Amino acid sequence: MIEKSLQVAVITGSKSDLDTIQKTVDVLKKFGVSYEVKVLSAHRTPRKLAAYVEKLPSRGAKVVIAAAGMSAALAGTVAAHTSLPVIGVPMETRTLQGLDSLLSTVQMPKGVPVGCMSIGSAGACNAGLYACQILALNDKKISGKLTRFRSEMAKSIMGLKIKL
Amino acid sequence: MIEKSLQVAVITGSKSDLDTIQKTVDVLKKFGVSYEVKVLSAHRTPRKLAAYVEKLPSRGAKVVIAAAGMSAALAGTVAAHTSLPVIGVPMETRTLQGLDSLLSTVQMPKGVPVGCMSIGSAGACNAGLYACQILALNDKKISGKLTRFRSEMAKSIMGLKIKL
Amino acid sequence: MIEKSLQVAVITGSKSDLDTIQKTVDVLKKFGVSYEVKVLSAHRTPRKLAAYVEKLPSRGAKVVIAAAGMSAALAGTVAAHTSLPVIGVPMETRTLQGLDSLLSTVQMPKGVPVGCMSIGSAGACNAGLYACQILALNDKKISGKLTRFRSEMAKSIMGLKIKL
Amino acid sequence: MIEKSLQVAVITGSKSDLDTIQKTVDVLKKFGVSYEVKVLSAHRTPRKLAAYVEKLPSRGAKVVIAAAGMSAALAGTVAAHTSLPVIGVPMETRTLQGLDSLLSTVQMPKGVPVGCMSIGSAGACNAGLYACQILALNDKKISGKLTRFRSEMAKSIMGLKIKL
Amino acid sequence: MIEKSLQVAVITGSKSDLDTIQKTVDVLKKFGVSYEVKVLSAHRTPRKLAAYVEKLPSRGAKVVIAAAGMSAALAGTVAAHTSLPVIGVPMETRTLQGLDSLLSTVQMPKGVPVGCMSIGSAGACNAGLYACQILALNDKKISGKLTRFRSEMAKSIMGLKIKL
Amino acid sequence: MIEKSLQVAVITGSKSDLDTIQKTVDVLKKFGVSYEVKVLSAHRTPRKLAAYVEKLPSRGAKVVIAAAGMSAALAGTVAAHTSLPVIGVPMETRTLQGLDSLLSTVQMPKGVPVGCMSIGSAGACNAGLYACQILALNDKKISGKLTRFRSEMAKSIMGLKIKL
Amino acid sequence: MIEKSLQVAVITGSKSDLDTIQKTVDVLKKFGVSYEVKVLSAHRTPRKLAAYVEKLPSRGAKVVIAAAGMSAALAGTVAAHTSLPVIGVPMETRTLQGLDSLLSTVQMPKGVPVGCMSIGSAGACNAGLYACQILALNDKKISGKLTRFRSEMAKSIMGLKIKL
Amino acid sequence: MIEKSLQVAVITGSKSDLDTIQKTVDVLKKFGVSYEVKVLSAHRTPRKLAAYVEKLPSRGAKVVIAAAGMSAALAGTVAAHTSLPVIGVPMETRTLQGLDSLLSTVQMPKGVPVGCMSIGSAGACNAGLYACQILALNDKKISGKLTRFRSEMAKSIMGLKIKL
Repeated sequence: MIEKSLQVAVITGSKSDLDTIQKTVDVLKKFGVSYEVKVLSAHRTPRKLAAYVEKLPSRGAKVVIAAAGMSAALAGTVAAHTSLPVIGVPMETRTLQGLDSLLSTVQMPKGVPVGCMSIGSAGACNAGLYACQILALNDKKISGKLTRFRSEMAKSIMGLKIKL
Repeated sequence: MIEKSLQVAVITGSKSDLDTIQKTVDVLKKFGVSYEVKVLSAHRTPRKLAAYVEKLPSRGAKVVIAAAGMSAALAGTVAAHTSLPVIGVPMETRTLQGLDSLLSTVQMPKGVPVGCMSIGSAGACNAGLYACQILALNDKKISGKLTRFRSEMAKSIMGLKIKL
Repeated sequence: MIEKSLQVAVITGSKSDLDTIQKTVDVLKKFGVSYEVKVLSAHRTPRKLAAYVEKLPSRGAKVVIAAAGMSAALAGTVAAHTSLPVIGVPMETRTLQGLDSLLSTVQMPKGVPVGCMSIGSAGACNAGLYACQILALNDKKISGKLTRFRSEMAKSIMGLKIKL
Repeated sequence: MIEKSLQVAVITGSKSDLDTIQKTVDVLKKFGVSYEVKVLSAHRTPRKLAAYVEKLPSRGAKVVIAAAGMSAALAGTVAAHTSLPVIGVPMETRTLQGLDSLLSTVQMPKGVPVGCMSIGSAGACNAGLYACQILALNDKKISGKLTRFRSEMAKSIMGLKIKL
Repeated sequence: MIEKSLQVAVITGSKSDLDTIQKTVDVLKKFGVSYEVKVLSAHRTPRKLAAYVEKLPSRGAKVVIAAAGMSAALAGTVAAHTSLPVIGVPMETRTLQGLDSLLSTVQMPKGVPVGCMSIGSAGACNAGLYACQILALNDKKISGKLTRFRSEMAKSIMGLKIKL
Repeated sequence: MIEKSLQVAVITGSKSDLDTIQKTVDVLKKFGVSYEVKVLSAHRTPRKLAAYVEKLPSRGAKVVIAAAGMSAALAGTVAAHTSLPVIGVPMETRTLQGLDSLLSTVQMPKGVPVGCMSIGSAGACNAGLYACQILALNDKKISGKLTRFRSEMAKSIMGLKIKL
Repeated sequence: MIEKSLQVAVITGSKSDLDTIQKTVDVLKKFGVSYEVKVLSAHRTPRKLAAYVEKLPSRGAKVVIAAAGMSAALAGTVAAHTSLPVIGVPMETRTLQGLDSLLSTVQMPKGVPVGCMSIGSAGACNAGLYACQILALNDKKISGKLTRFRSEMAKSIMGLKIKL
Repeated sequence: MIEKSLQVAVITGSKSDLDTIQKTVDVLKKFGVSYEVKVLSAHRTPRKLAAYVEKLPSRGAKVVIAAAGMSAALAGTVAAHTSLPVIGVPMETRTLQGLDSLLSTVQMPKGVPVGCMSIGSAGACNAGLYACQILALNDKKISGKLTRFRSEMAKSIMGLKIKL
């Protein structure tokens, strides 16, 4: 896609999270939002992560989406390096089913907020939508698309009588 | 305060949540953001809640903060009635310590995002800050205040050697 | 089936819940109870849900069964719109195994009760039986069928010595 | 109160649960429902419990409310001895905060449903209301009182702007 | 096997638990202990269960093993009807992985003890061994077999250096 | 008390557990069972613990009760050193409310059973009773006392109508 | 104390953690280990934290102890900036009792280990001891003190018969 | 491999843990650290375990890695028998997904520390690395390899823009 200027930065802590974060990307594409996806880890590449995040405002980014699992320090660390709104996506995990990712992402201390989504792919999809909702506050095109999205979503659940 | 026009709507599910939500209000005041606080329940006043939320965009509101406990349907219900970004604050609870509020607030299904904060008063404070971070995307004054807030917060943790 | 008049309304939050809710329907059919199944979401179709629920008493419905997963606001939202007894069925979930659905469904605040069943298909079956138990208070035919059901269930567990 | 005939039987597993169950009684009194309260334990007085429960239908009882804590077998055991709708109230516990009571009460196997309320005093209050909702299906007086109760509850949450 | 007289009664709450309880039976057979296996449910056949349990002492039984899942009232109900030592085996469950069975089985109130084993097949095996340990207090043959069993178990873990 | 010969050895992992284990001792005294209480830790005095436990059979002990908190290895370690039936009491803990003690005590691997009681003082009381139930298999006096205890316990829960 | 050269760096995420970390300091003092205590937050002072940690090896530090609560990213972030062994202490928290701190501290991804202690003050004390155990590998004086500490600890649990 | 002298002892509680512990061994091999792997159980071979652990210092061992599941007493028992730093690896479990192993391994009482890794194979890998970090304090070769490992790990996460 032609990058108008970066609107949303999407960061995952590991390559294995990319399948899930595809749901985020699908939403951003659908809404015509410019984005880029990076794999950067709070634990394995902390310096690069900090440098990347700190440059985001000057590149025009408005929102950062951070997805990580286990001791999911990624979203919090991103939030530590920027005042842009950070959306956290706790990844599903093999052993504790994402409870570790969830608590690590959502239980931020006073002063450094992260807006946490649900665990796994539902959260990944919602992260994209939430980013669009923030962008829509100053973008009528996205705002209009959100209205249509909502209406289509409602229609897809017809509320018709089901034959069982 | 003179209401410039409403920027942030703060809703709690019960009067007993007002003590906690005071932390949100303190932040909004500090950043000069216009707000109002309402007690409206997804379970006890669903029609009024829906009507109130649906009028918010026309009143100029940009962000909704919703705080509730136990089966905390409030933030999700608010998100069901608006495309404004909704920030959820799970209240501390007597029996399950907020785990019920947290899971009810954060585990939103695909299509209707809520940005969930940490449980209780840390989350209430962060909800105010997160709202400011969203508003700051188009408000240089709030943006500047955020930068100063971050710098003061860092200073309050001096990193000096502690005598123990 | 010929609808005598609607006795039990069955609502699921998503089409993906229909497989599980089939167990409810099987019980209602077995007991000759008239029912209808709707997919309506507290988060995606809140207005339609409210309108549907509020018309139920005038259609003769006595009981509402609501099945949803994750942040399962459905049963609570239904209960917010009617004084009919609401039976909640927490759906099994991929990440937290239904703990999120369970806490969201059962932990209702004071004033708006939901009668919560067990998680998943056992709960779906029991929701049908519980509805029949309520209807049986004023329906001797259902009452008689319940007595026979109990007796058959007991017989199916013969209490005979097992060869192992 | 003059016992018209018993409508609701309230059973607690221990005398120490009576303080909590007072909330149930307060609701039943408010709605003019006839009731009696017994302390009977699934573990300590199983024979008496069975005998008591089995006589309830002939005494006119329509609903049984059972409140117990820890390994809360009470509601399930009551449900094993009657086809009347059983409402379970999981008591708050010292060590696991009612998670044990909740899972023991709600996770009933296929065939023997219990309608589980929230943990502790909110659940105790709701148990009374849920019983009234069931009775109201065939009692216009209770039905009318429920409508007024709902309306007063909504009013008590005025939805007015709060000064914080 | 020729029943010397019944030493251990093994009860499961459902036929689906028999696969797991086979581990218990294997141990009892190995130690030459007389046993019988019954499927009897606290929720579905409460009267039969009570009658069965109350006759056990007169049949010579020394120990009762009770295995059940979900709201696992079985072991507690057995303990309510006898002063024989009751060994509880919490079954693995689909949704909450046996946490519900475990808490229901182990969290017995003061006065009615159950000796709870680990969840699932390890617990089923250990239930057989624990029964043997109790019987061994007055049976030198079993006592000798236990000593040999322990020694073989230790040998099977040779403590030799492993090549990895 | 005059030690007939030791019947029950009671071990706690720490002096701070003695208040809780007093409930065990109260039961053993009431039933006239000879006992001794030792503080011995699986983690801090492993050699002494092993030596103590291995001498118990020769001193006539029939049952060992082991109470510990947090990573509660005590009961399992005792069971590793004896074929006597071991009763575990998980202590209440400050941070995780005894969930750590419970899982450490109950989740024993195949081959080394521990009969686990409920968390804290209810479990401590039940440990004493369970020991008596085991001893009663070969002691008519204890057996008779158990029958009287059960009957008094049932009476203390009169099943009378409560005035609320 | 005269700083021989820094052996152990102790970092807490917040001033409110200092009371707990005093237990760590007490141990380090007792063993004559040189240390310093800093308050530095992964979320509020990430740059200072990184800078501080990266200078530790050149100052002679051998071990880092990091104590934090809630979404406890501190220990993991420290580990991201150094190859020194990092000991994590999860702080007790108000709402989830340290379960959030524990999972955030212990569930580190492959490649960046943290040695996690128990929650709260027991963990704080053990962090000091674990640091000494690491230092003792090359310091006979500390090694000797550890041997004496162990022996005194064992003695303080005399294993004597307790009068209850 | 030619054993220079034993540096790291790796113990698992069961043969079934060897697949997971292979990850530990892979790391130790990669760093040229001498090691041996033993299967020894705190519950099934307590005497052999104690004897083995107590001989480790005289054989030159610097670190012990202990991996076990369920009621994972292994690491704590090892720590009870040595002042060498003990690294615990909680094994994934079938029923509670390693929560039992984690709490049993990490929640050590005051005085006997275990450095706990994450659950399962990530923890197994990290145990090897943590052992190397401790050895590196006095071994420049390992220290140099750690620096290279970190740098390669960072490179493997390129931080490049991903095409999604």
